[in-house]
Amino acid sequence: MLVVLRLGHRVGRDLRITTHVALTARAMGCDKVMLSGEKDESVIASIKNVVEKWGGSFTVEYQKDWKKIVGGWRGKIVHLTMYGEPVEEKISEIRKFKNLLIIVGSEKVPGEVYKMSTYNISITSQPISEVSALAVFLHEYFKGSELGKKFKKARIKIIPQAKGKKIERGYD
Amino acid sequence: MLVVLRLGHRVGRDLRITTHVALTARAMGCDKVMLSGEKDESVIASIKNVVEKWGGSFTVEYQKDWKKIVGGWRGKIVHLTMYGEPVEEKISEIRKFKNLLIIVGSEKVPGEVYKMSTYNISITSQPISEVSALAVFLHEYFKGSELGKKFKKARIKIIPQAKGKKIERGYD
Repeated sequence: MLVVLRLGHRVGRDLRITTHVALTARAMGCDKVMLSGEKDESVIASIKNVVEKWGGSFTVEYQKDWKKIVGGWRGKIVHLTMYGEPVEEKISEIRKFKNLLIIVGSEKVPGEVYKMSTYNISITSQPISEVSALAVFLHEYFKGSELGKKFKKARIKIIPQAKGKKIERGYD
Repeated sequence: MLVVLRLGHRVGRDLRITTHVALTARAMGCDKVMLSGEKDESVIASIKNVVEKWGGSFTVEYQKDWKKIVGGWRGKIVHLTMYGEPVEEKISEIRKFKNLLIIVGSEKVPGEVYKMSTYNISITSQPISEVSALAVFLHEYFKGSELGKKFKKARIKIIPQAKGKKIERGYD
């Protein structure tokens, strides 16, 4: 089970970044996104809408208090942070674990998160987007195999094209 | 020369996503970001501020009309779009080129962009963030070597830690 926890969310301001985190988690092979912080029905609805149209079994859950999610997790915890150890040094060790809670911070991450996490992992030690950090982490974790993932029960599918757009509609 | 063109920008609404695109471009080895659409001084200032503190020679430029940027480009053009050909099938061909304009769309991309681009490339054929798409593309292009990139003249540097934060200050 691969779960992404989006730490903290402010209605309005974080709408698009949180949505991009969730879309990345789904497209790149995670099972679930857990949202914490302020409850934002529009984020939840838009993710559910994507799953309904584009298929797969990705789910979204909300829990205001992130400590309950982290405290109740049975498995390893990976916190993505620019202050952590380089992904390229730790990924082969992390790949051994199939149950991962991947924590993606927002603006200000409480110090406890660093302590509660099994791994604090950085994607470059530079200011970067939490969205890119998640994408590169997942791409390294799955060694690229996630790019060809199939999504069952899709109502919409893209047929890749060199130029232009081709969409296939209808149920599997 | 590796340049990212952010196609279209709406002041306010796109502030954070455009900033995340630019930070990803810088952290993952590009030379420049070109912004088009509405002029947003706060995005430009925040990117310049990151370069000043964190080092390197990344630049940011603004040109309202994206067609002038694309039309004047001497080199190959890669447009990242969910409708394109899978990155994993085309990347070894693209890696041969050292001059690339990488186009990252916003909400609605004009049809001409698909025609003017040398490659239309998808990162999964699923709804995903343009920020993740750029990150995975660059990670594939550089085969991971971008993760260890050094930034000269940095006033701030992170010393990677398993727990906690360690920052080094001062000039190179």
